Amino acid sequence: MPLSKVLDRIDTALPDAMDRLMALLRIPSISTDPAYAAECDKAADWLVEELQSLGFKAEKHETPGRPMVVARHEAPGPHILFYGHYDVQPVDPLSLWHRDPFDPAIEETPKGPVIRGRGASDDKGQLMTFIEACRAYKDVTGALPGNLTIFLEGEEESGSPSLIPYMKAHADTLRAELALICDTSMVSPGVPSIAGQLRGMLKDEFTLHGPRIDLHSGHYGGPALNPLREISKLIASLHDDTGRVTVEGFYDGVPDPTPEQKAQWADCGFDEAEYLGSVGMTRAHGEDGYSTLEQQWARPTIEINGLWGGYQGAGSKTVIPAEAHCKITCRLVGDMDPDDVRAKLRAHIETRLPVDARITWDSDLEGSPAAVMNTARPEFEAARQALSEEWEREAVIVGMGGSIPIAGYFKEILGMDAMLIGFANDDDAIHSPNEKYDVKSFHKGIRSWARIIDRIAG
Amino acid sequence: MPLSKVLDRIDTALPDAMDRLMALLRIPSISTDPAYAAECDKAADWLVEELQSLGFKAEKHETPGRPMVVARHEAPGPHILFYGHYDVQPVDPLSLWHRDPFDPAIEETPKGPVIRGRGASDDKGQLMTFIEACRAYKDVTGALPGNLTIFLEGEEESGSPSLIPYMKAHADTLRAELALICDTSMVSPGVPSIAGQLRGMLKDEFTLHGPRIDLHSGHYGGPALNPLREISKLIASLHDDTGRVTVEGFYDGVPDPTPEQKAQWADCGFDEAEYLGSVGMTRAHGEDGYSTLEQQWARPTIEINGLWGGYQGAGSKTVIPAEAHCKITCRLVGDMDPDDVRAKLRAHIETRLPVDARITWDSDLEGSPAAVMNTARPEFEAARQALSEEWEREAVIVGMGGSIPIAGYFKEILGMDAMLIGFANDDDAIHSPNEKYDVKSFHKGIRSWARIIDRIAG
Repeated sequence: MPLSKVLDRIDTALPDAMDRLMALLRIPSISTDPAYAAECDKAADWLVEELQSLGFKAEKHETPGRPMVVARHEAPGPHILFYGHYDVQPVDPLSLWHRDPFDPAIEETPKGPVIRGRGASDDKGQLMTFIEACRAYKDVTGALPGNLTIFLEGEEESGSPSLIPYMKAHADTLRAELALICDTSMVSPGVPSIAGQLRGMLKDEFTLHGPRIDLHSGHYGGPALNPLREISKLIASLHDDTGRVTVEGFYDGVPDPTPEQKAQWADCGFDEAEYLGSVGMTRAHGEDGYSTLEQQWARPTIEINGLWGGYQGAGSKTVIPAEAHCKITCRLVGDMDPDDVRAKLRAHIETRLPVDARITWDSDLEGSPAAVMNTARPEFEAARQALSEEWEREAVIVGMGGSIPIAGYFKEILGMDAMLIGFANDDDAIHSPNEKYDVKSFHKGIRSWARIIDRIAG
Repeated sequence: MPLSKVLDRIDTALPDAMDRLMALLRIPSISTDPAYAAECDKAADWLVEELQSLGFKAEKHETPGRPMVVARHEAPGPHILFYGHYDVQPVDPLSLWHRDPFDPAIEETPKGPVIRGRGASDDKGQLMTFIEACRAYKDVTGALPGNLTIFLEGEEESGSPSLIPYMKAHADTLRAELALICDTSMVSPGVPSIAGQLRGMLKDEFTLHGPRIDLHSGHYGGPALNPLREISKLIASLHDDTGRVTVEGFYDGVPDPTPEQKAQWADCGFDEAEYLGSVGMTRAHGEDGYSTLEQQWARPTIEINGLWGGYQGAGSKTVIPAEAHCKITCRLVGDMDPDDVRAKLRAHIETRLPVDARITWDSDLEGSPAAVMNTARPEFEAARQALSEEWEREAVIVGMGGSIPIAGYFKEILGMDAMLIGFANDDDAIHSPNEKYDVKSFHKGIRSWARIIDRIAG
């Protein structure tokens, strides 16, 4: 039985696998900051070398931004593509990290050992679970375990500007039977999870312009339009008292979760109190009548991500500023169309503008629709069984609050279904200080992929 | 007739007076920034030397902050104190200045020549009108024109932290029959104005704390409390749709303007359309039912001066921030008590806090009540006549939207009435880029003080 030998090999070689992950985590491959472009190159080179050592035909492909890593192993059987990303988020605020984000280490915690460092969970630790599964097969059997392409991006954390053109130009190489994506989390620690649906996203940003210049709030206070007060009113107008978005037509194309989904999600081991409590909340603050998971997976949102205007320094400044600024993201579900939602959002704001105010919109912010996976494919059932065996707990088909546009692009550009399986946990602090990945996630993640490969890539 | 000779002397010596003002404007005496402490010292020294050259016994007095300048000339007649401030506002945003703020120059404009530079209007140009009037008397008569004290502060733009202790310690020196204050503007260009009432002020600042850490707006968007949305709702709740403040009890102690005041203000030459239009407004945005001047002089306000949270950089960041911040000032009228208003404002905010949010308040922000001048004193009628003669236009008793706490302190600590007369114009851009003072304001301001001194200090 090669699988059991592969699993044994994964167990015994875990320390070496961790060392390799540490080496990758030491490369500060922050994609959004041009100052780190060379580091992104270095991470891509490291991966190419790693994949070549396993027998892949691996190459770094330049783009106008950060390079792609593409590794191919031709073999009989269905062509499976694995996607991950080697770039990471910026580390600010650095002062809140308790160690250098790029000097990773194993730390003992009350919940078990963790790998601490930027990218440990998102996504270097996760992408290495698949590569290490391949390595274990190679070590045990002498060959890679199937007809595989590994496709690693370096711009996921900065909006993937090169991704679509690259996919279009290399469609023939990348088109496979199925894409595997490892960039998601488990619904609850120890509960293996396959994403059945992902929310889409659109970004927007505006400046509200009021007085021609900054005004003195003593001299002008009263008659002057204050952009900070007006932008607050506009933002406050986006939701009613039940948490429902008030933008006209916002919910067009939004399906209610099915009774089956509601039942499955209510029974998927999600500990609402623990989840909310870990970030300081005692209740869900979204739409009344929906559970935390429903609010997060099946309901669209408008979130304010940045808001500013006037004086922010120490002490006081008696100013009525000329401008106020707001950054917005919407999460989309069902058939919501990003361009349609953007138009409705903008109309909502613009029809509520007071006299003497005007709005300018940032026009360069993209959007992507929600994605619903083709869970009827046999690979989903195979993966569900494999995961259930490894984790000794029934695997569940869950939703995801975040947006992973790559799944939509695979479908749209390559006509290829995707299956998203990840081993992150909600307390991994991705995008935040002190990011970590549980050693258990890394270890059992590798074993999970070995089991899934055994079932679907044979 | 010495007055006519003094006025002639003012006319012929105007170029020299402008040169002296330029020299003072070249000193960047920004009080709020410790980096400019030495420059504040330099400005104080310059004034001491200037006043000594006129025959004053002038001294620089150290304080824990910036020094005071006190100049005394003992003579028969009523003791008159003149107050001004030699410190200036910061210059940011520097990029919006069309010249170095501290390299002043005379510039021709469609409305006539102006003196351009930080402090030209607020308050170096204004304080020099009085000193130059004294100089003209000295030049013509060989003596200073009365029993005078000149008292110049260096911390007016940074909250005057040393002022009250200094006044208490030097009460005997500073106590005079009447204080003259030159730090205000004319209600309309060419309309000489005496301030009959000033609004008070209180400052407050809070942080709204939501989630324990910054959250990913995809993963948490929906169930997570968003402090930017909540702070917007709180700010939006401060006013109703008519522009009235909704804080319970906010208007306690607020008198409506009297019919006499309303009539006088309606007929004081104030061009509402020009005033609002110059800063890009077509209407008054304060409480319905009150004119622009009533909103500005006779009605209290709550203004947001700073608002911020989340991501402010280029592009997008999918964050729900842990905190949001807000800086507030209230302008007070009538008998409103700053501490009482602060308590009511805080109660309004705190009772509207959602579950899982909490507030922290900045506790170090001061307040001062409104001030109503004793316009029945004969010096007000004397000044009104003097100003009407100089400007060939009936002088008016106006309100002031700004807060000049010194008038209240003079009354409270020294039992001394104050008379506020200034020659600034609303388009002087004080506290803003490209501050200016009309050459006409400077010239006729000097002449105005000469006429007023002639009537009240003789």
